[in-house]
Amino acid sequence: MRTVAWDETRPQVRMIDQRSLPGELKVHTCEDHLQVAAAIRDMVVRGAPAIGVAAAFGMALAALKSPAADVESLRTSLREAAALLQATRPTAVNLSWALQRVLGWVDQPQENPAGLRSGVLRLALEMAEEDVAANRRMAEFGAALIADGDTLLHHCNTGALAAVDWGTALGAIRMAHEQGKRLHVLVDETRPRLQGARLTAWELEQYGIPYEVICDGAAGFFLQRGQVDKVFFGADRVAANGDVVNKVGTYMLALAAHAQGVPVYAVAPTSTIDVRTASGAQAPIEERDPMEVLDLQVSGGRVFPAGARARNPAFDVTPHRLLAAIVTEKGVVHPPFAPNLENLAAPAG
Amino acid sequence: MRTVAWDETRPQVRMIDQRSLPGELKVHTCEDHLQVAAAIRDMVVRGAPAIGVAAAFGMALAALKSPAADVESLRTSLREAAALLQATRPTAVNLSWALQRVLGWVDQPQENPAGLRSGVLRLALEMAEEDVAANRRMAEFGAALIADGDTLLHHCNTGALAAVDWGTALGAIRMAHEQGKRLHVLVDETRPRLQGARLTAWELEQYGIPYEVICDGAAGFFLQRGQVDKVFFGADRVAANGDVVNKVGTYMLALAAHAQGVPVYAVAPTSTIDVRTASGAQAPIEERDPMEVLDLQVSGGRVFPAGARARNPAFDVTPHRLLAAIVTEKGVVHPPFAPNLENLAAPAG
Repeated sequence: MRTVAWDETRPQVRMIDQRSLPGELKVHTCEDHLQVAAAIRDMVVRGAPAIGVAAAFGMALAALKSPAADVESLRTSLREAAALLQATRPTAVNLSWALQRVLGWVDQPQENPAGLRSGVLRLALEMAEEDVAANRRMAEFGAALIADGDTLLHHCNTGALAAVDWGTALGAIRMAHEQGKRLHVLVDETRPRLQGARLTAWELEQYGIPYEVICDGAAGFFLQRGQVDKVFFGADRVAANGDVVNKVGTYMLALAAHAQGVPVYAVAPTSTIDVRTASGAQAPIEERDPMEVLDLQVSGGRVFPAGARARNPAFDVTPHRLLAAIVTEKGVVHPPFAPNLENLAAPAG
Repeated sequence: MRTVAWDETRPQVRMIDQRSLPGELKVHTCEDHLQVAAAIRDMVVRGAPAIGVAAAFGMALAALKSPAADVESLRTSLREAAALLQATRPTAVNLSWALQRVLGWVDQPQENPAGLRSGVLRLALEMAEEDVAANRRMAEFGAALIADGDTLLHHCNTGALAAVDWGTALGAIRMAHEQGKRLHVLVDETRPRLQGARLTAWELEQYGIPYEVICDGAAGFFLQRGQVDKVFFGADRVAANGDVVNKVGTYMLALAAHAQGVPVYAVAPTSTIDVRTASGAQAPIEERDPMEVLDLQVSGGRVFPAGARARNPAFDVTPHRLLAAIVTEKGVVHPPFAPNLENLAAPAG
């Protein structure tokens, strides 16, 4: 089953509810774009490529459900829907890229509302297929960097659950495994939402790839003991200079790997490259509800004292100098990143 | 109430049970040295200075409870008790230092078993008092490094709960607060045992010092945004060259602070300096039960998939080049650490 899929019988968008994994594999359905926006904001669906495709399907629902009777008022309600979907999460640029791509099509000459409606759906379905194909190519490029016997350290979740299928960094690891390479994966648990512990560990169980979960702060120990061959993670936004904005904790991991001479790879589709963001410092960083940090129990007992306060930035910036390469569906980008990325970047919106 | 104290009415050792904080302030009592060893191993009591004093009190219980009728057989049972206490936790050198100090006294000429028994107790009580006095001096030296208005980032728990009273790094922060300096503390939650979230947050609540808890991986975000003035932590072992062995996650934190030009301070009594450990790479690193990582719930639901595996190293090594200074009860040690530390180190055992 795909992470995000169109169900034409209703119509509706079906998503694996990532909040209930690994305990339960539940399907969450959205019948309009407001429900899709809520699902992105509440992280029913997460992962930069997955939320891009979910937003495109949200636009298809908006097109089909809008009562607009003429092309111009349908365009207006689609622009409103896009603004609402855009506001759900600020950091991952794939969301913005997907919405701009749909809006670019919406602005093309249209004969009637029916053509516009079916065209938006056709484009969203095409984007879902393209996501799978791009991820597969990315996985092949990434797998070529992985050697038989490697121990890989991985942050957050970047697998099938982070995209329509395959995913980014974890897709490369899965592909290397399917090619017969013997691998071991150290999985950062990835506080606060524990995407590593919950989702990456669950995916690796499905694929039969040996792994161990570690606390995020323990990555440095394994790196300094020489027990890690390569570090892999995804990206929510790649700036023009190659800086990678990704799940909080990535920067400290990349810094420790670089200090120990271990190569660091970011894996992301070209839709994640944002040439309008000059460097990571210019990227907006989402700060989420402190309850995501504070709602934690050990042996069923509460961890934090009553009244505890917390800060919860969801992303950080990994400077490009720490990266060995950025893997895209068009090939592996090596330093110097700036000119190489500009040539590869997906056309803006 | 002190974290570890002697109760002469029974006699017994009384400890704050750190496993039940912040939910409940419970007292755990040990009536013999076997119970003290279990309390150290199970982390009823933790923190390098605290486990040193707890072990000394364990020796006092062993001396009082031993049925030995002559000095030589009492010495034998004390040496056995010391070996058992030593085996509880391998990394913190204070434990070894405290036991060697007691054994050094045991080896002095003694007239009769009663003198040996009361002498061991007297020495343990003296070591508890010395711990408080040393920590207060350390806190004063450390507080002098903290400026009015500073935001301090702190790892693990190094407060009163990590010693008999005051503690090390958090003692310095508390002292600066008592001197009237306005402070803000970012508290690393410190996975897996969450000593920051559980204990440091609880202590800061008691002292009335403003704080926010952050996930360990988020430290890099606040450092790269220029929101941290200084980083403070304790030490479980300081090698001859100044490398600091401390709670897992310290290395990545120190690396990120150093990369951002933020000064990093380790605060530890001279009993933590081990001149026989040439560098951090030679220090034994305890790896604890993976269940400490895996036993975690969010909103009451399980986090890890069934059958998940984990690794759980409890410490890592921070190379001395990342440290601005090491604060001891005898003064602040600046680089070059090697010669300066050798002069300050407590006499071996």
